[in-house]
Amino acid sequence: MRRPPARPGDALGAIETPALVIDLDVLERNIERMAAFARAHGLRLRPHAKTHKSARIALMQIAAGAVGVCVQKLSEAEALAAHGVDDIYISNEVIAEDRLARVAALAGRIRLSIAVDSVPGIDRLARAVKDAGSTLDVFVEVDVGQGRCGVAPARAGSLARMVVSHDGLRLAGLQAYHGGAQHLRRSDEREAAIRHAVTQASAARASVTSAGVPCPLVTGAGSGSFVFEAASGVYGELQTGSYVFLDRDYADNEPAPQAPAFEHALFVLSQVMSRGAAHAVVDAGHKAHAIDSGLPRVWGRELAFANGGDEHGILRPRAGAGADSLPELGETVWLVPGHCDPTVNLHDHYVCVRGGLQKGRVEAVWPVDARGCVG
Amino acid sequence: MRRPPARPGDALGAIETPALVIDLDVLERNIERMAAFARAHGLRLRPHAKTHKSARIALMQIAAGAVGVCVQKLSEAEALAAHGVDDIYISNEVIAEDRLARVAALAGRIRLSIAVDSVPGIDRLARAVKDAGSTLDVFVEVDVGQGRCGVAPARAGSLARMVVSHDGLRLAGLQAYHGGAQHLRRSDEREAAIRHAVTQASAARASVTSAGVPCPLVTGAGSGSFVFEAASGVYGELQTGSYVFLDRDYADNEPAPQAPAFEHALFVLSQVMSRGAAHAVVDAGHKAHAIDSGLPRVWGRELAFANGGDEHGILRPRAGAGADSLPELGETVWLVPGHCDPTVNLHDHYVCVRGGLQKGRVEAVWPVDARGCVG
Repeated sequence: MRRPPARPGDALGAIETPALVIDLDVLERNIERMAAFARAHGLRLRPHAKTHKSARIALMQIAAGAVGVCVQKLSEAEALAAHGVDDIYISNEVIAEDRLARVAALAGRIRLSIAVDSVPGIDRLARAVKDAGSTLDVFVEVDVGQGRCGVAPARAGSLARMVVSHDGLRLAGLQAYHGGAQHLRRSDEREAAIRHAVTQASAARASVTSAGVPCPLVTGAGSGSFVFEAASGVYGELQTGSYVFLDRDYADNEPAPQAPAFEHALFVLSQVMSRGAAHAVVDAGHKAHAIDSGLPRVWGRELAFANGGDEHGILRPRAGAGADSLPELGETVWLVPGHCDPTVNLHDHYVCVRGGLQKGRVEAVWPVDARGCVG
Repeated sequence: MRRPPARPGDALGAIETPALVIDLDVLERNIERMAAFARAHGLRLRPHAKTHKSARIALMQIAAGAVGVCVQKLSEAEALAAHGVDDIYISNEVIAEDRLARVAALAGRIRLSIAVDSVPGIDRLARAVKDAGSTLDVFVEVDVGQGRCGVAPARAGSLARMVVSHDGLRLAGLQAYHGGAQHLRRSDEREAAIRHAVTQASAARASVTSAGVPCPLVTGAGSGSFVFEAASGVYGELQTGSYVFLDRDYADNEPAPQAPAFEHALFVLSQVMSRGAAHAVVDAGHKAHAIDSGLPRVWGRELAFANGGDEHGILRPRAGAGADSLPELGETVWLVPGHCDPTVNLHDHYVCVRGGLQKGRVEAVWPVDARGCVG
């Protein structure tokens, strides 16, 4: 674990750059807005902790009404469980037998659930659970449009029957997330993609019930599309993750009608360490913020961010702005990351600021508990 | 620090995926080939440790003849120094005063040097060094074509004079790296870019000596261009980094004439955790390998890698290959990362394999000492 870039009580100017910073006031508003949306629609909320990898944020979400959290990896579940999160759903497949033994062991300590999408996957999971003497909730994953994991809807019934044939496994429902829909820029494009996903999820549910197995829940949805899953009458649980932070890529979406107004809560604070006549160089490159979904936006300044490589970013005045908009050597700027999840995964600590990005102070420093938990 | 994905003595099948793996035999050959090149050309070699962030690899490079290593960040220098590396050059500017105090303190413990490119930067550095009672070698950075940090060649002399006006600072020479040249695909394009860089570096050296300051060294060059800097008669030291691992992006370059034949030494081992009729899904997405320079290549298989998001990769048969080339559920594949430096920065451990990727065994597990050292 690296040295923390700040201490509680520090002024903003004392934060060592580059640093991953949370605006706590905004974080709390985002958490409450999503919880209120789920309450108003009578839906379960199980936010995705792959976004924040933080037990504290997971517990804040649960305190606001979430039933638990999702993760993508066993090691994430172990890290969050070690810090007090006791209801976790691994919304992804695990195939390696040594890791399935750890899944089964963890199921003996917390309320755990997991996704499956293959006969060997179910067989191995059942064996591990039997060996450990634990029991587990299982979701059959259906490919509802993403083209990644999951079976075709018509196969869901046979897998569900196989799940319930094992003593230690309970069918909890269907995993039906459509990742490919989340960043379609127009709201009507996302709506159309989720209409297709709902059709697929309905067909999969019919396949399960036709096989004589009750299907208690369809779970899915992301921060770009949840308004549409919520309106479907098919999805009973929302797995939104990025809403807690609202990265640049999600902010670039046309908002969906009736969506809560989330705000940017996550920033990378960076410092100008070199100045040219027409550009400034900051100390945050893509070892400090992930660029898989594009470059960060400079917050509150007339500055455009250009790729400066692994350790640098290059700032230039935005079109129409003069060179006097460039920050001076030693000044700091706030970057809104292009993609929050992999940006968080680069840092060991969140510096948590209360009172805003201009006059606030550091209230807390939190570890990113599951940083680097990729397995 | 995460749990290591393997233990010394493990068979390859026991490595937990996704894992960052070094082929030790290849690593050693790459280190020796670069060292032999520098020896044959009578040049100093100071490999860039931003690539590997590992004290052990730095010490292997020094044992093979390197004079020391470069880093980009103070915290990288501190992490490597804590593990026995005692000659480090921070080839980058540091502006924050609290960090300059740490630079000056570290200069009291190891042989340290650093780059500068501004009057306030030199002033603050001189003050920090004076307060600490240490001395420091300083390189004036010149912009030789990258358009990032560094001054115009004509300004190098005045900065050099300013450096030597301070008791604790010695002018070690000029920092003249052209990052933008490294991935021009054609060798003649890279040669032309470095011809320009050499002209700029020569002009900067003339500016320094005209100012009455001796200029002992011009340092720079990367793994895509070093053959040209080596032939220039101007550069006296090479800062190549990526050659130790040879990522996919460097392998896609047309080789330069007379360049040593580096081989892939760095891999991400991943496992198939879902299978469709025409695709396989592996457990390594871009939280396990950086995609800023493009997607990884699947090693030794007729498979193309498609972006599956943060936690997944999607494999399909390459054009001309049949569906029978797809790996089965549970099989592992070796990925050659698109860009080695930020990929390394995602992992806590190197799993070091001896005897090749088919029949080898795990010989050692090394920490990535400076992982996450972005400040």
